[in-house]
Amino acid sequence: MITAKLIGNVWATRKAEALSGFKLMLAEEIGGINEGRRLIVVDIISAGIGDRVIICTGSSARRMLGNDDIPVDAVVVGIIDEDCNFK
Amino acid sequence: MITAKLIGNVWATRKAEALSGFKLMLAEEIGGINEGRRLIVVDIISAGIGDRVIICTGSSARRMLGNDDIPVDAVVVGIIDEDCNFK
Amino acid sequence: MITAKLIGNVWATRKAEALSGFKLMLAEEIGGINEGRRLIVVDIISAGIGDRVIICTGSSARRMLGNDDIPVDAVVVGIIDEDCNFK
Amino acid sequence: MITAKLIGNVWATRKAEALSGFKLMLAEEIGGINEGRRLIVVDIISAGIGDRVIICTGSSARRMLGNDDIPVDAVVVGIIDEDCNFK
Amino acid sequence: MITAKLIGNVWATRKAEALSGFKLMLAEEIGGINEGRRLIVVDIISAGIGDRVIICTGSSARRMLGNDDIPVDAVVVGIIDEDCNFK
Repeated sequence: MITAKLIGNVWATRKAEALSGFKLMLAEEIGGINEGRRLIVVDIISAGIGDRVIICTGSSARRMLGNDDIPVDAVVVGIIDEDCNFK
Repeated sequence: MITAKLIGNVWATRKAEALSGFKLMLAEEIGGINEGRRLIVVDIISAGIGDRVIICTGSSARRMLGNDDIPVDAVVVGIIDEDCNFK
Repeated sequence: MITAKLIGNVWATRKAEALSGFKLMLAEEIGGINEGRRLIVVDIISAGIGDRVIICTGSSARRMLGNDDIPVDAVVVGIIDEDCNFK
Repeated sequence: MITAKLIGNVWATRKAEALSGFKLMLAEEIGGINEGRRLIVVDIISAGIGDRVIICTGSSARRMLGNDDIPVDAVVVGIIDEDCNFK
Repeated sequence: MITAKLIGNVWATRKAEALSGFKLMLAEEIGGINEGRRLIVVDIISAGIGDRVIICTGSSARRMLGNDDIPVDAVVVGIIDEDCNFK
């Protein structure tokens, strides 16, 4: 998984039907040599802009949604505690 | 998923039979440290050149096509609304 | 998928039995920030050195071979038409 | 797989239910051109901070957990022996 | 797949049980813009240090082992012939 900060909402009126109802957010990787990499992720645990989150990617992302037929490759799987400090 | 701009059509007369009928487009990633990365993607939601889209990659891309046997690893899953601004 | 140019043949007398009979070629990505990335790919559509091709990677590559048990993660899925120009 | 050093614990009170009870750690890749890349990994073999470990990623990571439904894409699969030296 | 040179053995006494008996080696990618990338790979075709090999990654790597439950994401699938020259 990677550490990222949620930096915005993504709105897409025209999209795959299977994505209806899912909240899409823009995430930016934090730390390490990929700092600043951008991903669009699905959030189903009520994370918000500014949160530092754990992003799971690839086929494993679909495991978070309980439905293997959804075309999603990145999801928020956790919100890092505010008092969890690492550089 | 990643944010990309569709920048061209890709024509390939000789290709896998399973790809017949699918529209192939050239996409260029927008934003973050991978800005400018190129991908060839399948579009089945009538996106057009110049559109800013959401690209899903890997095995999840096949979920968009409703057929797990197609050799495709990147598809357009949404068109980002014009008034959705993020840097 | 990615755009690449086929630049050579790869010969490996000692290899996985499941790979017997498959043509292996060296491909070099074209365009974007990953220009120059090298991959070894399987070709079953009679592409040749110098051809500009579409490469599918990951589990989707196995879909091209009609056999999910082959240890291959990159295949040629199409040959880009000569008159298809994009930068 | 990649070689990485475990450099911290990751605490996330709000997370996917399927992740409950799993130890999450921050890992930093060692060696080669991706030196310094950061990943959050699951550890179930009692590795500790400072250990040099082998990280398996993608769908294969789920194989380590004996449950294909867990949204995890990186796990510790081994601890490199202290007297195993490579640059 | 990628081209790599095997540059060392990797010893891990504490590791996933499913990895017992597999030879782990350190590989370094050759050629292209990812030259110098390091991977830990499983070898079951008796490759040795110094050999130039073909590495298959991701879920396809498990196909080489004949057992889909092993947490491995990179394996040697072929040894490139010594007289196969490419830059």
